[in-house]
Amino acid sequence: MVPDTLRWDDGSLILLDQRKMPWETCFVTCRSSEDVARSISSMVGRGAPAIGIAAAYGMALASFGGEDIEAAREMLLASRPTAVNLRWALEVMDSVKEGSPENMLALARNLHKEDIEINRAIGDNGEALIADGSTLLTHCNAGAIATAGWGTALGVMRSCKERGKRIKVYADETRPRLQGGLLTSWELMEDGFDVTVITDGMAAWLMKSGKVDGVIVGADRIAANGDTANKIGTYGLSIVAKAHGVPFYVAAPTSTFDLSIRSGYDIPIEERDGDEVRSPYGKELLSKDIKVWNPAFDVTPGENVTAIVTEVGVLRPPYDSSIATVLRDVKAR
Amino acid sequence: MVPDTLRWDDGSLILLDQRKMPWETCFVTCRSSEDVARSISSMVGRGAPAIGIAAAYGMALASFGGEDIEAAREMLLASRPTAVNLRWALEVMDSVKEGSPENMLALARNLHKEDIEINRAIGDNGEALIADGSTLLTHCNAGAIATAGWGTALGVMRSCKERGKRIKVYADETRPRLQGGLLTSWELMEDGFDVTVITDGMAAWLMKSGKVDGVIVGADRIAANGDTANKIGTYGLSIVAKAHGVPFYVAAPTSTFDLSIRSGYDIPIEERDGDEVRSPYGKELLSKDIKVWNPAFDVTPGENVTAIVTEVGVLRPPYDSSIATVLRDVKAR
Repeated sequence: MVPDTLRWDDGSLILLDQRKMPWETCFVTCRSSEDVARSISSMVGRGAPAIGIAAAYGMALASFGGEDIEAAREMLLASRPTAVNLRWALEVMDSVKEGSPENMLALARNLHKEDIEINRAIGDNGEALIADGSTLLTHCNAGAIATAGWGTALGVMRSCKERGKRIKVYADETRPRLQGGLLTSWELMEDGFDVTVITDGMAAWLMKSGKVDGVIVGADRIAANGDTANKIGTYGLSIVAKAHGVPFYVAAPTSTFDLSIRSGYDIPIEERDGDEVRSPYGKELLSKDIKVWNPAFDVTPGENVTAIVTEVGVLRPPYDSSIATVLRDVKAR
Repeated sequence: MVPDTLRWDDGSLILLDQRKMPWETCFVTCRSSEDVARSISSMVGRGAPAIGIAAAYGMALASFGGEDIEAAREMLLASRPTAVNLRWALEVMDSVKEGSPENMLALARNLHKEDIEINRAIGDNGEALIADGSTLLTHCNAGAIATAGWGTALGVMRSCKERGKRIKVYADETRPRLQGGLLTSWELMEDGFDVTVITDGMAAWLMKSGKVDGVIVGADRIAANGDTANKIGTYGLSIVAKAHGVPFYVAAPTSTFDLSIRSGYDIPIEERDGDEVRSPYGKELLSKDIKVWNPAFDVTPGENVTAIVTEVGVLRPPYDSSIATVLRDVKAR
C-alpha cells in the first residue's frame, strides 16, 4: 500500500521521506515553517501539488509557533522556485493569515482534502482519453505521493484501472534522481499495474517499436499559452512523441496554471547540485571531479501538448483561450 | 594519459578493462579465442572498431593455441550481435586462416595499426566540418578506447584541438552503462578539453538553450541507406537535434558499412541483462524486482544524419549512392 504523503498529527506535519522510498518507509516530522521549507528544498517531500499543501501546513505551523508570518511565507515560497502550486497555496493561505492558528490549520486541512478530490477528478477526466488495452509512457513521478493522493498522471492510470481498462505502463527512470525508476515503478507495482522501467534515452526507440499509445506526465507550472514546466527530460520526450504521432498529455490541477506568465521562457528553472547527477542517493556513479549541468526542469511548448487534463475538464489547443476560459469558470465558483 | 585499448604482449592479447575505468586502470589478459569472446560480451573491451581488432587477435590466439579455427570464428562472431566491425575483421582474417599463426598475428597487427591511421583520417575529415569555438554534444564513448586509438567522434574533437580550434564538449552520461559519464568525460579531461556531463534527458533542453552547434556520435553498423545503429539513446538524440536545426554527424570507419542490409530495420539489436539498468557496476539504483527493458542499441534513420564522416571522406545524403560510391573506391584500392 502507498503510505500517506502528508499527515497532520498532534500539532506536527508528518511527511513521507521520498528520498528513501522504496527502500525504507520513513517519515519526517515538521514542527516549524523552517522544518517544512527544508523538507521541500531537500526533496523529503516533492511533487508540485504535494509541496503546495505542505507549504499551507507550514503556515499553520508558523502561526501555532508564534513565528513571524511574513518571514515564514517568504521562506516557504523560496524553498523551490519552479512549481507554482507553492505560490498558489500560500496565496490561498493569505486569506486567513490575520486569523487564529486554528483558522489556518482548518484551511490547510481543507486544501489537503480538496487535492485528493481534484486528483480523482483529473483521473476521471483523463480516463476518457485512454482506450482499453493502451500502453502509456510516463516520466518522473506524478503519482499519489506527488499529491495528497491518487496522483495526476498516475491518477489517470488508476482511474483507467478502476473502470476495468487494462493498461500497461512504461516509466522513464528519470535521471538524475530516478523518480520514475524508484517511485513510479513502486507506486504502480503496489497497485498491481504491469510496469516496465526504461532509461530516459530509450523512450524514442520504444515509440519507434510502436508500443506506446500515449505519453502522460504531470506539470510544475503551465504558462498562459500552455507551455509546461515539468521534470527535466519532459521536453525531449514531447519532441519524440510528436515525431512518432504519439499523443502527449499533461495532467495537472488548475492551480498549476500561471496566467502571469505568458510563455514558458519566463518560468524560473531551478538548477540543483551536480552531485545529484554524480552520486544519486550517495551512490557514486561518476567521479567527483567531473563538471555537470543539472537543471531540474525544462519547458515543453504548448504546441507539443495534445491536451491538458484538469479537474474541471480536458483542455485542447489553442491553449491561450482554453486556459483563460477554464480559469474564469474556476474563479466564478 | 589514455592507456592502450589493446596490446599484443608475449603471446597474449592485453585488453584495457573498460568496466573499471576511470576508477581503476586494469588489464585483462586473453590467451585464447574464448578469453577474447568473453571479454567482448562482458564489455571488458567495447566500441565497434576495438572489438573488431580484438576479434582479429582472437583468431591469431586460436591459431597459436591449435584451436578449431571455425569454432573460434563462430564464437567470436557471436560475442556481440550489433557491431558489424566484428564480422568485417573476421572476414579480413579469413584470407589467412589457412596460413601459419604468425601470418594471422601479422594481419591482426596490421588491422590494429591501420585503425589508428583510419581514426586520424576520420578526425581530420571531420575537423573541416567544425567551426572554431563550437560546442559539440556526444553520446556514449566513440573515443580512443573504443578504437585502437584517437577515436571516431572524439577523434574529430582531438583533430580540432590539434589544429588549434577551441572546442567545448557536452557528453550525455549514456545510461545504462554510463560510457559518456565515465569514459568520454575522463578521456577528454585527460586531453585537456572543457567537458560537461549531462543526463540523457537534458540534451533537448541544452539544445533549446542554443548552446549546441553540432552533435557527433560513432556507429556500430550503418545500412546501405545510411540508417545507423549506435548506442541506445542516439535515435532520440537525432530527433531532437533535427527539431532544433542542429547538425547531426556520424563518425565511423568504412568497415562499419553493411551493404548486405538495405535499411536499419534489419540490423540485429542486442538486448542485455536488466541488471545493467538496475545496478550499473554493482551500484544498486533500482530494486531487483522491477521489470526493465534494456536494448543496447537503436537505429537512427539516415534522414536524421547530416553527414557521415569516414576515413576516405565526408558522405552526404542521398546515402544510398554516396555510400555505394565510397565503398567501390575503397575496394578498388
